[in-house]
Amino acid sequence: MQNQTLKVEGMSCNHCVNSIEGALRNIGVTAKVDLKNGTVQVQYDENNVNLEKIKHEIEEQGYDVV
Amino acid sequence: MQNQTLKVEGMSCNHCVNSIEGALRNIGVTAKVDLKNGTVQVQYDENNVNLEKIKHEIEEQGYDVV
Repeated sequence: MQNQTLKVEGMSCNHCVNSIEGALRNIGVTAKVDLKNGTVQVQYDENNVNLEKIKHEIEEQGYDVV
Repeated sequence: MQNQTLKVEGMSCNHCVNSIEGALRNIGVTAKVDLKNGTVQVQYDENNVNLEKIKHEIEEQGYDVV
């Protein structure tokens, strides 16, 4: 298992939290958004998914990983 | 037809726009959210719906009509 914290811009409300956490859940990633700090903590199995895919998924939802 | 502009707090992103415009559409109200100004312009048939119902619907979505 890998743990990472990503800095993400554009997350502003609980809808944003749900869309990111939900999209990551769909690819087997446990995510926790911190709106105040603009971060997404992710936990994932590096045999199933990598950080590039996670970043791509967040950007697909309309947010910028910085 | 009635036109009104409501001041609404807590709208921050396009998910918020969609949830408010969609909820109002469901009760036959045409709504346009202006995120920058924090306003919702509504157009409705006063024979079908009144402003109290519109405000209630917005508050149901988790926003404050001020």
